Amino acid sequence: MKLLIGNKNYSSWSMRPWVLLKAFGIPFEEVKLRFDFTPDSAFYRALQPVTPTAKVPVLVEDDGFAVWDTLAITEALADMHPEHAIWPRDARQRARARSLCAEMHAGFGKLRGLCPMNIDADLHEVGAKLLSSEPGLRADLARMDTLWNEALAASGGPFLFGAFGAADAYFAPVVMRVTRYGLPLSEQAAAYAQAIEQHPAVAAWVKDAMAEQDFLDFEEPYRQKA
Amino acid sequence: MKLLIGNKNYSSWSMRPWVLLKAFGIPFEEVKLRFDFTPDSAFYRALQPVTPTAKVPVLVEDDGFAVWDTLAITEALADMHPEHAIWPRDARQRARARSLCAEMHAGFGKLRGLCPMNIDADLHEVGAKLLSSEPGLRADLARMDTLWNEALAASGGPFLFGAFGAADAYFAPVVMRVTRYGLPLSEQAAAYAQAIEQHPAVAAWVKDAMAEQDFLDFEEPYRQKA
Ligand SMILES: N[C@@H](CCC(=O)N[C@@H](CS)C(=O)NCC(=O)O)C(=O)O
Ligand SMILES: N[C@@H](CCC(=O)N[C@@H](CS)C(=O)NCC(=O)O)C(=O)O
Repeated sequence: MKLLIGNKNYSSWSMRPWVLLKAFGIPFEEVKLRFDFTPDSAFYRALQPVTPTAKVPVLVEDDGFAVWDTLAITEALADMHPEHAIWPRDARQRARARSLCAEMHAGFGKLRGLCPMNIDADLHEVGAKLLSSEPGLRADLARMDTLWNEALAASGGPFLFGAFGAADAYFAPVVMRVTRYGLPLSEQAAAYAQAIEQHPAVAAWVKDAMAEQDFLDFEEPYRQKA
Repeated sequence: MKLLIGNKNYSSWSMRPWVLLKAFGIPFEEVKLRFDFTPDSAFYRALQPVTPTAKVPVLVEDDGFAVWDTLAITEALADMHPEHAIWPRDARQRARARSLCAEMHAGFGKLRGLCPMNIDADLHEVGAKLLSSEPGLRADLARMDTLWNEALAASGGPFLFGAFGAADAYFAPVVMRVTRYGLPLSEQAAAYAQAIEQHPAVAAWVKDAMAEQDFLDFEEPYRQKA
C-alpha cells in the first residue's frame, strides 16, 4: 500500500492519513510528491493517472486501486483494519467523532485560509496581527476550542475520544497552526494540543517536516526574507 | 428520530439525508426550520441547543443525541442500519463511493457558489450566462460529468453504484442545479440526472419544494421580479 503525500512542511491534508497510519502501526510506503501547482508539473503528471482530482493525499493499493480524499481514506482504513479503533468502538462516540471530522473537513475556512500550515516557521507575530484584524479567525478558534473541550470533558482525554484516533489525526494539522501562529487556547485545549505534539506519530511527521528544508514561495506568504 | 432541515426549495445539504432516509424507508420525523440567518433568529434559536454548528441538517435521536454534518449523518445511518446498502456492499465500491461524496463535500466550489439550489426556479438564462463567463463553473461541470460517467460505466447504472445509495443522495441536489440552470451534460450523465429526478424519494422532495412557495430574497440572487 502506498500513500501519496505532498511536502511535509505544508501539506496539512497529507499529514492526517500519514499520522493515522503511523499511529496504528499500519505498514505503508510513503511517496512524496513535491508541491508544484503549475500546469503539467511533475506533481500533476504523477497524480493524474492515479486520481482524477489530482490532489494529495491518495491511498494506492498494491494493484493500483486508488482512494482519494482524506475522509474517504480514513473510512477505507477503518474498513480494512477492524482490529484497530480508528473510530471509537462506541456507536455514539463514533458518530460524534465523524461529526467533528466532517465539520473540520468542510469548515474552519478562516483558520485554514489565513493560517496555512508551515511547521518550520515561527509565525507568532503574524498570528497576533491576524487575530486582532480578523473576527472570522477568532470565531473559528473559539469554535475549535469549544469543540475540543466538549469532547475531552466527555471522554476524560488525553485525546478527543480517549485513545488516539481518526479525530485526533484530523486535528493534528490544526494544532500545528495554533502553535506556529501562537493562537491562544484555553487551558484544557492547550493541554490537548501538547498531547498531540507529543504523540510519536505526530512527532515523527514534524521531525521529517523540519528536516525537509524545501521552501516554496507560494506557500510562504509570511516568511521574512533575510 | 428527527431530521432538522431547512427550506426544501433551497437547502441542498438538508436534501441529502432526507432523500436517503426516504429511499430506504427509514422512519423519521421531519422538522423544518425556515431559513433566517439573522442573529438570534428563530432558526438559530432552535438549532443552538441542538448543535454547536447551528447548521442544518441535524439528525436528532429520541433522547436528544445529535449528529450533525451531512457526511457524518450518512455514516451514522449506515451504522444504525446495516440491513440497508446505504454504501455499496463491496469494499472497493464503498471506498470509491466515499471518495466521490467526500470530493463533493469539500469541492465543486464554483458550481455550488454560482448556482445555488432553487428547485422552483427556471434559471436557464442565468445558467447560459454563467457558463460563458465562468471557466471555473465549466471545469466543475466537466469534472462532475466525468465522475458520473466513470462510476456508471463501472456499475452499469442506473445509479452510480448500481442501486440507489448514499452517493446518489449526495449528488441529487447537484442534479437540481444542473437541470434548473440548464447546464449541458453528456448523454450518459443526462440519463443519470433523469434517473435521479424520477427516483420516488427525490420526486417527493421536489414536490414538497414546489409546494413550499416561501421565497427568501437572500436565496434569490437571480429571480426576475415581476
Ligand atoms: N478534500 C481534499 C483536499 C486535498 C487538498 O486540497 N490537497 C492539496 C494539498 S494539501 C493539493 O493536493 N492541492 C493540489 C491542487 O489544488 O491542485 C482531501 O481531504 O484530501
Ligand atoms: N458541511 C455542512 C454544511 C451545512 C450547511 O451549510 N447548511 C446550511 C443550509 S444548506 C446552513 O444551515 N446554514 C446556516 C448558516 O450558515 O448559518 C453539512 O454537510 O451538513
